[in-house]
Order: sequence, then structure tokens, then C-alpha cells
Amino acid sequence: MNHGNKKQVRVGMVGYKFMGKVHSHAYRDVPFYFEPEAVPVLQAIAGRNEAELKQTAAKLGWLSCETDWRRLIERDDIDLIDIVAPNHLHAEIAIAAAEGGKHILCEKPLAMTLEQAYRMRDAAKKSGVVHMLSHNYRFAPAVQYAKQLIASGRLGRIYHLRATYLQDWLIDPRYPMEWRLQKELTGSGVLGDIGSHIIDLARFLVGGISEVVGRMDTIVKRRPLPGQPMSEEPDRAPMGDVTVDDACSFLATFENGATGVFEATRFAGGNRVGNRFEINGEKGSVRWDMENMNHLQVYFVDDEPGLQGFRTILCTEAQHPFAGNYWPSGHIIGYEHTFINLVSELMNGIARGDSPQPNFDDGVANQEVLAAVEKSVITKKWETVGK
Amino acid sequence: MNHGNKKQVRVGMVGYKFMGKVHSHAYRDVPFYFEPEAVPVLQAIAGRNEAELKQTAAKLGWLSCETDWRRLIERDDIDLIDIVAPNHLHAEIAIAAAEGGKHILCEKPLAMTLEQAYRMRDAAKKSGVVHMLSHNYRFAPAVQYAKQLIASGRLGRIYHLRATYLQDWLIDPRYPMEWRLQKELTGSGVLGDIGSHIIDLARFLVGGISEVVGRMDTIVKRRPLPGQPMSEEPDRAPMGDVTVDDACSFLATFENGATGVFEATRFAGGNRVGNRFEINGEKGSVRWDMENMNHLQVYFVDDEPGLQGFRTILCTEAQHPFAGNYWPSGHIIGYEHTFINLVSELMNGIARGDSPQPNFDDGVANQEVLAAVEKSVITKKWETVGK
Amino acid sequence: MNHGNKKQVRVGMVGYKFMGKVHSHAYRDVPFYFEPEAVPVLQAIAGRNEAELKQTAAKLGWLSCETDWRRLIERDDIDLIDIVAPNHLHAEIAIAAAEGGKHILCEKPLAMTLEQAYRMRDAAKKSGVVHMLSHNYRFAPAVQYAKQLIASGRLGRIYHLRATYLQDWLIDPRYPMEWRLQKELTGSGVLGDIGSHIIDLARFLVGGISEVVGRMDTIVKRRPLPGQPMSEEPDRAPMGDVTVDDACSFLATFENGATGVFEATRFAGGNRVGNRFEINGEKGSVRWDMENMNHLQVYFVDDEPGLQGFRTILCTEAQHPFAGNYWPSGHIIGYEHTFINLVSELMNGIARGDSPQPNFDDGVANQEVLAAVEKSVITKKWETVGK
Amino acid sequence: MNHGNKKQVRVGMVGYKFMGKVHSHAYRDVPFYFEPEAVPVLQAIAGRNEAELKQTAAKLGWLSCETDWRRLIERDDIDLIDIVAPNHLHAEIAIAAAEGGKHILCEKPLAMTLEQAYRMRDAAKKSGVVHMLSHNYRFAPAVQYAKQLIASGRLGRIYHLRATYLQDWLIDPRYPMEWRLQKELTGSGVLGDIGSHIIDLARFLVGGISEVVGRMDTIVKRRPLPGQPMSEEPDRAPMGDVTVDDACSFLATFENGATGVFEATRFAGGNRVGNRFEINGEKGSVRWDMENMNHLQVYFVDDEPGLQGFRTILCTEAQHPFAGNYWPSGHIIGYEHTFINLVSELMNGIARGDSPQPNFDDGVANQEVLAAVEKSVITKKWETVGK
Repeated sequence: MNHGNKKQVRVGMVGYKFMGKVHSHAYRDVPFYFEPEAVPVLQAIAGRNEAELKQTAAKLGWLSCETDWRRLIERDDIDLIDIVAPNHLHAEIAIAAAEGGKHILCEKPLAMTLEQAYRMRDAAKKSGVVHMLSHNYRFAPAVQYAKQLIASGRLGRIYHLRATYLQDWLIDPRYPMEWRLQKELTGSGVLGDIGSHIIDLARFLVGGISEVVGRMDTIVKRRPLPGQPMSEEPDRAPMGDVTVDDACSFLATFENGATGVFEATRFAGGNRVGNRFEINGEKGSVRWDMENMNHLQVYFVDDEPGLQGFRTILCTEAQHPFAGNYWPSGHIIGYEHTFINLVSELMNGIARGDSPQPNFDDGVANQEVLAAVEKSVITKKWETVGK
Repeated sequence: MNHGNKKQVRVGMVGYKFMGKVHSHAYRDVPFYFEPEAVPVLQAIAGRNEAELKQTAAKLGWLSCETDWRRLIERDDIDLIDIVAPNHLHAEIAIAAAEGGKHILCEKPLAMTLEQAYRMRDAAKKSGVVHMLSHNYRFAPAVQYAKQLIASGRLGRIYHLRATYLQDWLIDPRYPMEWRLQKELTGSGVLGDIGSHIIDLARFLVGGISEVVGRMDTIVKRRPLPGQPMSEEPDRAPMGDVTVDDACSFLATFENGATGVFEATRFAGGNRVGNRFEINGEKGSVRWDMENMNHLQVYFVDDEPGLQGFRTILCTEAQHPFAGNYWPSGHIIGYEHTFINLVSELMNGIARGDSPQPNFDDGVANQEVLAAVEKSVITKKWETVGK
Repeated sequence: MNHGNKKQVRVGMVGYKFMGKVHSHAYRDVPFYFEPEAVPVLQAIAGRNEAELKQTAAKLGWLSCETDWRRLIERDDIDLIDIVAPNHLHAEIAIAAAEGGKHILCEKPLAMTLEQAYRMRDAAKKSGVVHMLSHNYRFAPAVQYAKQLIASGRLGRIYHLRATYLQDWLIDPRYPMEWRLQKELTGSGVLGDIGSHIIDLARFLVGGISEVVGRMDTIVKRRPLPGQPMSEEPDRAPMGDVTVDDACSFLATFENGATGVFEATRFAGGNRVGNRFEINGEKGSVRWDMENMNHLQVYFVDDEPGLQGFRTILCTEAQHPFAGNYWPSGHIIGYEHTFINLVSELMNGIARGDSPQPNFDDGVANQEVLAAVEKSVITKKWETVGK
Repeated sequence: MNHGNKKQVRVGMVGYKFMGKVHSHAYRDVPFYFEPEAVPVLQAIAGRNEAELKQTAAKLGWLSCETDWRRLIERDDIDLIDIVAPNHLHAEIAIAAAEGGKHILCEKPLAMTLEQAYRMRDAAKKSGVVHMLSHNYRFAPAVQYAKQLIASGRLGRIYHLRATYLQDWLIDPRYPMEWRLQKELTGSGVLGDIGSHIIDLARFLVGGISEVVGRMDTIVKRRPLPGQPMSEEPDRAPMGDVTVDDACSFLATFENGATGVFEATRFAGGNRVGNRFEINGEKGSVRWDMENMNHLQVYFVDDEPGLQGFRTILCTEAQHPFAGNYWPSGHIIGYEHTFINLVSELMNGIARGDSPQPNFDDGVANQEVLAAVEKSVITKKWETVGK
């Protein structure tokens, strides 16, 4: 593909599992669908298992490999560090990247703790690199369109948001232990992992959160250690302790006075990616569900009496952000396109020298909400966010 | 209609607006659809506006009228007092009825305060009358069937309930003041009025609630006094203060360890009767929505892989409680039928001398939750229910 | 119930099974919900099984019984003959009723043959009685509202209608023989029984049908005779021949140029009452489904770009015909209410001396479509309707 | 991307608009998601407008351009000719490709006429090249899974299929003339263009079609010639005649006795890509809708009474064909993935030397249905397919 004399952004990615695959694909496809002001080059990936790493690099289209992520930062031919490693590595890598003058794309949540988050943001800002956080759901055309409706006043003053991220992949008690269930590797559990996503959507759509009260539960407290057959008798397998929450919920007050109700869990049978919200305003409402991510439901209070009802809008039209880059009206896109859209923004940000939202400031604000929820679980009362 | 020598239950109803109409209809229709062990007679209604009262009695099929509800209790030809008057009258009427030896059907919420609720329950129990509370939504066939699934262990241990009752009839700030917005007449606002309904569903389906933390908001704080045209300039009309909540939400812990998330509001545009719940258990999930009250969505964790998905069940089959009394499979029923079902249970209860659930014990338990939510709003922390 | 000095319409009903129950209920409830200009009196029902008849009369609220329907016509205290007997009796009863000066409500389809239909209409017209046909689905508020939208031009010129009536109650080959499966008792099978309903909806909403081509199939050709246990070995039971269609479909041209696609079957697993249509016009579309009969989906071509999508309207508002007679906005009604609405129209018709639609003229027009479909099945080509 | 020593398939594509973009993308992405036995190389595209062609080639990632498609066939470095040009060119290009020993992927419908189709098939078979037809919808995981259910007998004997392909992009009479509306360039209109898609789905899922009767309509008969502003006064623009159908419907009998109802139109407001089917069998039913292409609705007749209902299955699990190549359970894919799946099959076919279905045999069978429908429109009667 010939991109003329466009700026190239040479990417070094740390990690290469699920998120590594979807990020790789986004770099691969962004020039096909968009005309970004800079184009990514899949320069290098880093990981510890050399054999697996090489195989993955070949499969996903990366030009080279490093078994130590620090090498990516040392290399002159890397412009952007993409952090898709587990949460406990985010801070160290991001700060090193910033200090090495590399732009940064970081998977969510930004950090394990608020203190880490502040240091990451400060490092990025001090060095002047472009930084972005991978809250991809914002970039669904339907979500972007909801944002436009709200920002332009079409829903009036916002009264309520209710959001869930319901999954069910831990419902089987035989599902084995993994890094997402260990506090030292992940920080918090479901709260940070997917609760952070719905906080990001809420902040994007409604605004800052000022106060919260919540709960965090660990429903299945011990799980078989990995690498064992999914036995009918899990109790006979060597077991490990789940040290984070696997279900959580919280109430919130937004800075603008709106109320929020949030729930994230991995025990909601039948919900695979139950990332959903409804927002009610003075003049209308919107509803969205990631499992039908191309559709947005919109209600207007002032629609003609008798004809009032939620409209089910297939957000594949020219009016819907990013949708025009894909297929004619009515032809849906999928999960991976939220990342392509995100990367198109990142490329433009790097070309222009600014950090597109959600960036590390958003990550810090998000982490402040996570921290306040965690605090409220201990104090059993409402806690102010950011204090 | 000839009911042979069945026991007759002569009803005296206090109040005659929306709830009066639907109760009247239920008494009227219950012998048509059911074979209850006792049959209601629409003996007398009480209200203060004599002209309106007489007209309503004729329209709804009542045999006589009283302008003082106390007369209903004095009359020998009344067996059951049905309280559909505003909340501030519940306690006085119910206690008088109990002391007068009349059976009682009371609209929800049971009382304005927990203290009233205790006195009402004690009076009913002391006198030995049959008592029941009009939480009609329990009696939708789909809800009853969900209960059967849970009670028989089909969903396993319950992990989560999330419930909403979303309305939008107060979204217009010009909507006038009424008794439901005045603390002295209603006790609490949206919490007691419709929050109590979803608490009842939660208690019915999942079990007792032990702890809560919540919020109550008044979104529109002043409204035009009634009897004025719905003006474009509401500020020029004489205004009154809204003295109760018109939106609320709370988190809950059930006695069995399940978690609950509740929200009730009158400002959710596009939601007319958004009374909905989803329950997730170890082995499956159910979803219900009053606006599609005949449908129940059911998911089983152990369904064959590849074929797992929520089933949309039209609860009009012989297997679905109460449904067999109506029409052949596939022919839906509506809102009013929840009351016919409730009254069929009440008639059987009176014939047998026991108080069908939900009765005043349930009303007290419900009121304890309401009181704990109210307390938590003041203390801003989790509160134990019933203390 | 006191109806003052309103005209009374004393009903004599022939037959008392499923349709008898729903008609009885409609007579019972119409004065509760409506202010019709005349009120029905459940005077007498006729049937051959005297014991069953008496029991049913008591249950459904009828004042007297006759074991010969002819007695109903002879009696001076009957004003309206309601024919809910099997199809092969419609013509004889209706003509006798007309000649006896009785008003007539007849279940659909009007007749077994076009010739019968003509004679019935002519008799009714000659005698000047009020006549009506029981196509109840027209009377769902959502359908009536769709009609208003079309009649007022909101959908523009109509291009297409597609309609189905999908059932599944014959899918089990062990389901026993009944009158609906025998040509001599029913005329045609699924075509006349439920195909006639969607033809009526099409004629009501779009207009007259001028040309058709279709097919009629008998999927299960022999069934166990009734009164036997539903055996696992149906072949060992005495069997009878199914002599009518149990599945059919046809294409149609409307007089106004619109195109129609129709299908009715009893073998569509999972469809209990799959009575559905979609209509597309120059300016918009509507969709309706009897299993969600309170909802109407409406699309407007001229809605703002980006906000175009079907609106899901809960037809329980004051703007929706008949809905205001029931409950506040958002509280749904059911199958039986379509009959209450129909009877309210019939009572007004009798009071005013005119025959509300659908009447016997509509029945004839409907029968002409049925006859043309049947003819096209034989000729295997398009046939003109009404020739 | 390093594909080791895998066979390469060098593609030469004729045409480069909508279908050119989606085919290009599929070639680009297939090695990322799949391990096909051969990998495509985007070798050359052909078109007449050189400037536009070069720009498109650069954008879509093609290595070279030709302004005469015949050059692609002459070139030694082309293995596969991909025909995305308008229908009137299919036969000439395909036959030349076959004679030149090139494998062929052809957009649907195969040809303008049945005679062309036969010649194309014969040429391909004679030359022994691999041939495939681009009916992409078959390759949605939900459709493939429906096929598995049917093929394995899970739905039992099939009784009915009803399928629509509803669009609305011609509903505005000001929409300009284009090649799809001119008989000499397209053969038939909506019938061949999208009717052929639902015929392909029907043949894939249910089997061969033996008999049809149908209609074809041209709703808007004249349209503004292209290149003019979309005027409010279309009549003042130079107009051209629409010489093909823009709406059609037909009834069908399958070889196995099942019945079919088909409709395709461009005038169904609110339906962008209303490609939908429902299939009913002895033991169950399936429903699918391209606008929600990841979902399959499945009903089993033998599900436990009380728990019978359509299951809404999100076909993103390992059990669903092709889905495992993309993202974890619950993460949806889109329109373009149907083409990636198709191309993965094509690559395997070329590596193995066989022609994956749907191939030119399927194209001929499809064209025979189209021809029989067209004939029935003239004769106004049922016509046998393939005679």
C-alpha cells in the first residue's frame, strides 16, 4: 500500500494476546478505511516466550520481535509504545516510554492504583509525548452519535445514566485461575477491568463523576490453578485464591447533578458482552448495547403525541461518526472496528502533536472513580471522587 | 351469574380513581375466569364527593355508596375493606377495619412509616382477619413462572438481581402538583410508590433484603398547583413545593448473599411502565419487562454449547400459572389480569381463612426496606434493614 | 350495573366454546369500559349438549339456554343473534336470523362458499338488520392507529403489504382430528380460518384486492380420530383424513396497485399467534405483531437523516383508538380487548341502525379473495378476485 | 506478513467500486484471521478510468493496474480473476478467464440470462479452473450454523421458508438512474441483484427449487439521469426509463416438498439491508436477519413445555462456523467478514483444486430460478424451474 509521503508511526507493542491481536489488526486496517494523517508501521512486538512471540509476529504481521520490552524503548526505529501487557506492567512501561520520548497507547485501566496513574500522567505530560488510553467502546459509531446528540443539547439536561457490563465467563467454578483474578497482577478485578469501560462511557457521555458508593464481591473465592483439565471435580485440583472482586456495583453522582447506577459482573449468565447503557434527559433518552453495537435507540420527549417511541437506528449512515468510512448504509461493522476508529484518531493525534481523548487525563479521572469506589467499599459510605 | 351456594365476600372499597377502577374490574371478572372458593360482591364504595361517587358506582357496578368510609366498617353487610385511598389514610382505615373484623385488601405501599406498618400488621393479626397487599405485578404469569423456576432450583443459587421501575409522566415540568408529590399525603415519593413494587418483586423472587444504601432526588422541585391550564409559562402559575423524591436508586444485599441494584424514577423519557428485572443465578437467568408482561426471557447455563441464548417465552401456556384461566396458547393478557389473579387468591384466602402473600407481613418487610433506604440517604452509608 | 334508560340489546348466542367465551366476556365488560349507545344483555345461548350448555351458561353469565338454535330466532326477547358455531352452520343460522328480523354478529369466515356468502349478505340487507363480522384483530388500538396513519396520508401511496398468520398447534402429527380439519364442516382450512383474518387486515389497511395466485397444502394428511389418548404410536389409533389445507400462501395485487404477500400455516414451530404485517408506503412503514399487539412500529422516510429508524410505539395513549377506555399510558391490554372494542362498535351500530365494518359486505369481499385463491390453486395461475 | 512457503494466489480484479472494496479487504485480511492453504496477493486491478484506477489501487493496496481487463488474462502473474464489474460483463470476462486458465470468483448474479450462465459454467468446467460465486451471506456464522442444524436433522423435515431482502434506497423518486436500473447492463433488476441472494440462501439451507410463480414490478418508472443535483423538481431534470423491476415477489416449491415465499424490493422504508429468513421444520425453526447478522433465533419443538421459545443465540462461539477465527465469545463481527470467510474457502479450494460452493453450478441453478420467475411473470402461471 502506497501512502505517499505520509508520516509513518512505527509501533512497538508490548504483549500479544487478545488485545495484541485486535490492536495489530487496527494498525493493519486503518489505512484501508481511513485517510489518517500518519500511518502505522507494525515495527516490533515484545514478549518473553520467544518461540510463541515469533510465531505471533509472523501471523499478525509484525516486522520484528524483542524478548525484553525495554529494547523497544531503546530502539530508534520505534515511535509509539503500545501497552497491551497485564495491568501490573502498565506504569513501569508507560513511564519508561514517556521518558524515552515515545508516544504511548495504553490498555485500560490506566494503572493498578491512583498513585501509579498520577505518575504515568505526569511522566507523559512532562515528556510531551502523545498519550491515549484504549477505551475502545467510545468509538462505536452509535456511541459517538449519542455523544453528538447530548453535546448538541438534543436530550436536554441529563437526569440519569444506568450502565452495566455483564459477562458470564466466570460462571463455571471450574474456570481456572488467571492473572485477571490476582490482585498483584491486575489491581482490581471486574471493577477495573470492565467497570472502567462503563465509567469511561459515562464520563464521555454525561461528564465527570463527583461521588460514589459501591460494593465489590468475590463470588467464587477459589479456582483451580491453570494448566489442568477442566475437571468435573474441581475440588481435587490444586486451587488458588481469587484475590479480587468478580462482581461489583455502585451508585454515582455526576458533577452536573445527574445520577448514575453502574454494575459489572462476570456471573450474569447469558450476557457475553453485556455492555449497555441508557441515558435519560429532559428532552430525550438513548439506549445502547454492545452486543448490537450498530444500533442506537433514541427517544424524543417532543415527538408528536401518539408517535412517541424509541427509534431503533442502525448507525451505518453518513451522519454517524466513522460509519462513512466503511460500507453503504445498513451494512454493519463489528467489535474490531471500534479499535480501527480509535487508532485513526491516535494517528491523527500523533501527526498533530496532541493527545486524543481518552488520554491519560481521562485515565486518571477514571482511576479516581475506581479508587473512590474501592474506598467506599471499605468505609461503607459515599465517598467523594478525587480526594 | 349463578355461583351456586358459594360463599360471598361483600366488598366495601374506599377510593375509586385509577386503582378503584382496576380493583372493581377484578371483582367483576374473577368469577368469569376462575372458580374461586368465594365470590366477591361489589357492595359499596366510599368517597367524599357524593355526585362523582354515585356516577362512578353506577359505572363500575357497585351497589351502594357511602360518603364516610367509617360507615363501611359499621355496616354488617361488608366482609372485606379494600383500601385504594391515598397513602396517608391506609393506617387509619386498615386498623379500623381490623378492629371491626373486616378482611382487608390494601393498596401499596402499606403505610407512610414503619411505625404505622407495624401497627397495621399487629391490628390485623390480633383481630384474625385476612389481610393482603395489592402488589399486583407478582401475579403476572411470567413472574409467577420465574418464581417457580427459582424455587425449584432451576437457576441455582442466585447471584444478582437488577430491577428498575422507570416512568416518565413527570418529565414535563408543567405537570401539576398532586397528592403523590406531597409528603404529608404519600409518605415517600417514587420510592414508596413504585420502588415498593420492585422491592416486592425482589423479595418474592430472591428473598429478604438485609442491607441497603441509596439515594433519593427531587428533580423538579416546584410544580404548578392543579386545576390550571397546562401553560407554556409554568412559572406564572401559582406553584407548590414537591416535598418527596421523584427519582431514587439503591444497592442491596439479600439475606442469601445475592446482590441487588434498584432504580425508580419518573424522568426516564420513553419508559411508560418500565418495570423490569433481570436475575442471574448459578444455573441460569431470567428477564422480564412489564411493557411486554406476557414474555419471560430465560437462559440456562447448561444448554448445549452453540445453542445457548435467552429463550423468549410467551407465558400463555398451561404450564404458566394463571394463564390457563384465560385464552388458548399465544393469546396475551394485560395489566388488569394481574389484579384478577390477585383477587382470585384473595377470595380463596378468605374462604380458607388465611392471608395470601403478599400480606401485611410482606408489607412490613417491604416498609423496612423503604425505611432503611430513607435512613441511608440521611446517613450516607449502608444501613441494615429492620433495625 | 345501572345503565339508566339505555337501549338494551338482548343477545342469543349459538355455540359456546373458545369464541363463545370471548364473546361472552366482551358483552360482559363492554359497559364497564365504554359508554356504548346500547348495552348487551346475555339473554340466551344455544347448543346441543344440554348438560354442558347449562354449566357453561352459568359460568359465562347467560340467563337462559336453548338446545335448538332455531328457538333463539323464534323468541321475542332476543335482538341479536351471535353465531360462534362451526362454519357449516353460518349460512343457515344467519339467513334465518335475518329473516327473523334479528341483528347478526357472525364469526369469520362468513361462509363456506362464495355462493353462501352472497345469500347471507343479501338476506341481511333485504331484512335491514344490522350485521357484523367478527374480525377482531382490526380492533387492536395499534392496528386502528396504523389505519389512521394510512388514511391520513402519513405513509403516502402504499407500495407493499406482507402479512403472515403463523401458528404451530398442528405440528404434532398426533394432534387429533377436529372440525377445523374437515372440509364439510369448515369449507377451507387454514386459508379460511386464519388466512381470512390477514385478508381482512389487508383490506382494512390497504384496500381491495383485485388479483391473486396461491397455493394450499396439506402437510399432515391423516390424523388420529378424537377422544383417544395422545399416543406415542399414532399409527395404531383409528385415523381420519384431513380434507382441507393446513398451510397456504398467496401473492396479491391490490386495487390501488400495491403488492401483497400472504402466508398462513399451522406448522411454523414457535409461532403461537404469529399474526403479523408490515406495510411500506412512499412516506413510511408500519409493522405489527399480534403477540406484541400493543406495540406498533412506525418509520417515516422524512425523519431527520441520522435519526431514521422504526419507532416502537406502545399504543396505550389517548391518541390510540380505544386505548383511552382502558388504563393510563403504558399499561397494556390483551387479546380479549379486541372483542370488547368490536362489541362497543356493534352496540353503537345497533343503536344507530347501521352495520359497522367489517360487516357482511366485507365478508363477501373477503370470501371473494378466498375463492380466487382456491381457484388459482386449481388453475395454477393468477385469478381475478370477484369473477 | 510472512506466510512461509504457502502457495500464493495472485489476484486480478475487474472493477473496483463497492464490491471491489469489500473483496480487496477480504484478500487483505484473510491471512490475518485464517490459516488458508493458499494466500492471496493483490496483484492487479482493471478499470477504464486510469486516474481513478490508480488512486483506488493505491488506497486498496493493489500492486498494479490495467485499463483493459483482457490484459489481466494475458498476464502470466495472475492466477485468479475476480469479476466485480456490472452484470453485462460477467459472461465475457468469465469465459475468457476460463479459457485463459484462470480461476474465477464472480459477483452475483452469475449472468444476465440462463444461456449465458450455461456457457459460463461449461467454460469453467471444460478448462478445469476453480470457480466460485460471491454469495457472501451464506458465510455469516449464524447462517452456517443454521445450515448445520438443518443438515444434522435438528429441525427435522423442512416445511416452510419465508425470505425477504428489503431495501429502501430507491424510495426517493429523485434517486438517479444507474446501471442497476438498466436492463441491458443488469439483466434483471431487484430480482437478480438481491433476489438471487435469498434464492442462494434458500438453496443452501433448504435445497433445490422446482417450481415458482411470481411478479415483478417497476414502481418508479422514470428517474433523473445521473450527474445532476438531487433536485426538488425531479421532473425538470433529463429523465431516463427504468427498464427493470424494482420490486418482486414469488412463491416456490422446493424439491423436498417445502414451500417458499420470497420478496425483494427497494421500496420498503426503514429496511436498509432487510435480508431475513425464517425456516420452519418438523422439529424446530430458525430465524435470521442480516442487520443483526451475528444472532440466530432457534426454536425446538421438543423443548420442555413451559420453556418453549425462540432462543436468541449470539453466534460468536467456538461452535459457530468461522466465528472462532475472530474474537472471544460475545464480540460481534460485521458485513465484511462474510467475504473474508468466503475468500478463506476460495483459497482452500484453489489450493486443493476444487470449486467451493457456491460455485458456477449453484449459479446456474440460481439463474434457472430467476428465469422461471421471469417466465411466470409473462405467463401469469406457475413455471417449472430448469425447463
